[in-house]
Amino acid sequence: MAAAQVWSVDPRTGKRREQVAVEATAADVDHAVRAAHTARGALADRVVRAAFLRTAAGLLDAAKDRLVAAADAETALGTTRLTGELARTCYQLRSFAGIVDEGDFLGVVIDHPDDTATPPVPDLRRLKVPLGVVAVYAASNFPFAFSVPGGDTASALAAGCPVVVKAHPDHPHTSELVAGVLHLAAERTGVPRAVVGLVHGFDAGVALVGHPLVAAAGFTGSVRGGRALFDAAAARPVPIPFHGELGSLNPVVVTAAAAAERAAAIGAGLAGSMTLGVGQFCVKPGLVLAPTGADGDALLAALADEVKRAGEGVLLDHRMRDAFVAGAAARAALPDVDAPVAPGAGDEHTVSPGFLTVPAARLATGGPHDLLLEECFGPVTVVARYDGDDEATAVLSRLPGNLTATVHLSAAEAAGEGRGAELLARLTPLAGRVLVNGWPTGVAVAPAQHHGGPYPATTSTSTSVGGTAVERWLRPVAYQSTPEALLPPELRDDNPLGLPRRVDGRMELPDRDA
Amino acid sequence: MAAAQVWSVDPRTGKRREQVAVEATAADVDHAVRAAHTARGALADRVVRAAFLRTAAGLLDAAKDRLVAAADAETALGTTRLTGELARTCYQLRSFAGIVDEGDFLGVVIDHPDDTATPPVPDLRRLKVPLGVVAVYAASNFPFAFSVPGGDTASALAAGCPVVVKAHPDHPHTSELVAGVLHLAAERTGVPRAVVGLVHGFDAGVALVGHPLVAAAGFTGSVRGGRALFDAAAARPVPIPFHGELGSLNPVVVTAAAAAERAAAIGAGLAGSMTLGVGQFCVKPGLVLAPTGADGDALLAALADEVKRAGEGVLLDHRMRDAFVAGAAARAALPDVDAPVAPGAGDEHTVSPGFLTVPAARLATGGPHDLLLEECFGPVTVVARYDGDDEATAVLSRLPGNLTATVHLSAAEAAGEGRGAELLARLTPLAGRVLVNGWPTGVAVAPAQHHGGPYPATTSTSTSVGGTAVERWLRPVAYQSTPEALLPPELRDDNPLGLPRRVDGRMELPDRDA
Repeated sequence: MAAAQVWSVDPRTGKRREQVAVEATAADVDHAVRAAHTARGALADRVVRAAFLRTAAGLLDAAKDRLVAAADAETALGTTRLTGELARTCYQLRSFAGIVDEGDFLGVVIDHPDDTATPPVPDLRRLKVPLGVVAVYAASNFPFAFSVPGGDTASALAAGCPVVVKAHPDHPHTSELVAGVLHLAAERTGVPRAVVGLVHGFDAGVALVGHPLVAAAGFTGSVRGGRALFDAAAARPVPIPFHGELGSLNPVVVTAAAAAERAAAIGAGLAGSMTLGVGQFCVKPGLVLAPTGADGDALLAALADEVKRAGEGVLLDHRMRDAFVAGAAARAALPDVDAPVAPGAGDEHTVSPGFLTVPAARLATGGPHDLLLEECFGPVTVVARYDGDDEATAVLSRLPGNLTATVHLSAAEAAGEGRGAELLARLTPLAGRVLVNGWPTGVAVAPAQHHGGPYPATTSTSTSVGGTAVERWLRPVAYQSTPEALLPPELRDDNPLGLPRRVDGRMELPDRDA
Repeated sequence: MAAAQVWSVDPRTGKRREQVAVEATAADVDHAVRAAHTARGALADRVVRAAFLRTAAGLLDAAKDRLVAAADAETALGTTRLTGELARTCYQLRSFAGIVDEGDFLGVVIDHPDDTATPPVPDLRRLKVPLGVVAVYAASNFPFAFSVPGGDTASALAAGCPVVVKAHPDHPHTSELVAGVLHLAAERTGVPRAVVGLVHGFDAGVALVGHPLVAAAGFTGSVRGGRALFDAAAARPVPIPFHGELGSLNPVVVTAAAAAERAAAIGAGLAGSMTLGVGQFCVKPGLVLAPTGADGDALLAALADEVKRAGEGVLLDHRMRDAFVAGAAARAALPDVDAPVAPGAGDEHTVSPGFLTVPAARLATGGPHDLLLEECFGPVTVVARYDGDDEATAVLSRLPGNLTATVHLSAAEAAGEGRGAELLARLTPLAGRVLVNGWPTGVAVAPAQHHGGPYPATTSTSTSVGGTAVERWLRPVAYQSTPEALLPPELRDDNPLGLPRRVDGRMELPDRDA
């Protein structure tokens, strides 16, 4: 039987562009994983890892025009957005190279013998080592930043782990091109190409998470797909960590005082955030608590104006388009739900952005309206109108976990008067990132970033963006009573690599940070 | 129907001592978890947490005689060992209080806005927050240090998480007494008693891991029990982290040169380690690779002498005794397995320590001898005799994950000659702690400790002993563009709490550590 073909498809027409690969068989997956496992030693040296990441960033930058054109042709995300996404991806690779240089993520802790402890402490020296081959499941909506060269790959390589990426079917051509660039970077750095493997196809994804030599997985995608892979990872004879970013509603609370102060600006800002990238962001605000009354009405009026202005757009594929149209219709059909600007189909290839309104009381108890508390991928948001703080609080208490939670406060509330602190305390248990007077779209690549949150936002307590994303792919090892001659250099008393370390209970920074 | 009775049993006689509790019903578990959840705010202040941990340590110290007597009566571990274990437990509580004081575990990272980043970075400030109620499953073999007041409880409280402990049926009376002491400590610190809940019974343990308000679990016990609870934690509608320490073979490699140098000392040391506490340690060396030939013979002779001297002992309960006798017999009955000192039954309440030998080649391929690669809880070890390095390597390549792996080297090998480095590199993937020329029993409470390892040693990459154990019960939250007035003090620019922090990419230590 011939291998299943993998085609690049133009979402603007729904038509096949070209065949770019074939689906990986179980044997292909096994080959890729074994090759990656065999190549892992090439990543043992941090200097090599940092050089590889920087070389990859440079080569991706240099191939920008070709990569952006390919990605636009099969995702319809537009060259401006994709140029920015590629720049972000390269910045991220370089950021992880800097993290590799510093080595704080190695978590080095050294305890010299201490007979006064109970029980006595022998010579103990701890550092973190790479877990092994990491399976990366690429996202649909970021063909660069959350796909083959994205945060999971960059952080895994930074940790010293080879990756095998399962390409997303929405951009197989881009995935092949990028893998080629990464392989060139590997060659130039003297690392085997197999440290970055690429496979296509649903079955390949299932085989990957079950492979005995796969030591961990990173995933960005739907709740359904992510949960199925999480379950498979947990059910293995040897379970593995599965860091999945699944789904998020990203609630926004607008206080009455904030609405009174700047209803139009908030409505316009919301429209911009929810329609950005045709609503295809995991941090798109999907539920907004806005007050009843004139100020809330003004917010909705501004929202309506701006959403209408956004116009139709093309989603990543026609299956997503159909799911959006059906999901928006099912939500709009619920009792007491209105659609001031109806979300749904545009022409046969596009969707039209919109928003729904519902009395907040409808969300305060279980029932069919709970559908409104599930993510609907695409340019739609639900505005729940609340009458008094208790109604807003009742809705917040029913929300699942989220990547982000946002509150819009008045100037006085932001300065500490009124309910600002209480609202932040209520939002913190709901999300991994809490914003004040901002919009969740736009996830900065920075040391303090946390892109993760309570389930279903994430299947673990980890982040997939930011400096600490590297922690997902490591495990600690403690060496006891090990002679200096046999210790890794990271653990030697003279600290030849200049690492930040905790020694006998006290943090010590190398001179460059003193 | 009357609630099932929970009895304290004397393992020295197999007879019931007294009824000390009843098994918790699902309603009891629900009540304990809800009460703990409601009380969680009392642990929000780190000063209170540290005071609670220190008060608990002081009160446990003060109740030493009563607690040790109770524990000895129902575990037969002996008052010397139990006095030491309680001292270790109090030391651990105080160590975690020190960790709470320092606050490094909060993982504070602050990024000020940076328009030069791609994309630009807004004001982002990250810290770790407690997960919520932690379910703790107490171990059989440490009625203090891995039970009600043990490392899971201490680290969870340090993180700000209330606990509900599922008592081990081998020491319900001790568990009740200790819980009483912890409740007194709570009262003295002004914290609700409900921050430490206690439940008894198998069904209560199952209900606990499934409770919607339980946010994470810590477990120390068998592979079978731990895996069942791990599976239940993963199968929840909202999965939770399950940090389980399950089983470990703790392999030991003795090089030919080490055996040539000090066979008798190694044999005697092995005997001491494998019979310590009647072999009831999770880090008991269960498989030893020793060379064939005269030096290996001398090692075995010394081992035999010392093991015979250890004499019979009482295991924690009669079910364990029966399992040990059956497990030792099944292993001894395998082809080519000899029992120079036969492990098995002593009198009707005791077991007799012993060891088995097998040609290493028997372990190099799958088959019935794989039983020898599974932990047998109690005073038995398996010595695999290898003929040349390749045979030893072949066995190592077949081992599952372990808490520890040990190598005994000659003086020259320890100084860097010969195979020392290669052996350390081979052992590192197998374990969470690697020892040179030592014995794995005795797990120091220290910042660099790592008590965990690849599955089945642990179900996660975490440790249950040492400073970093606190990390298991936290998740990060990033605050974006949040006004100073609303920020937690940990994240304010002036660092009022004097925390170590990463600011704009650089680690900064407070003055006391400078």
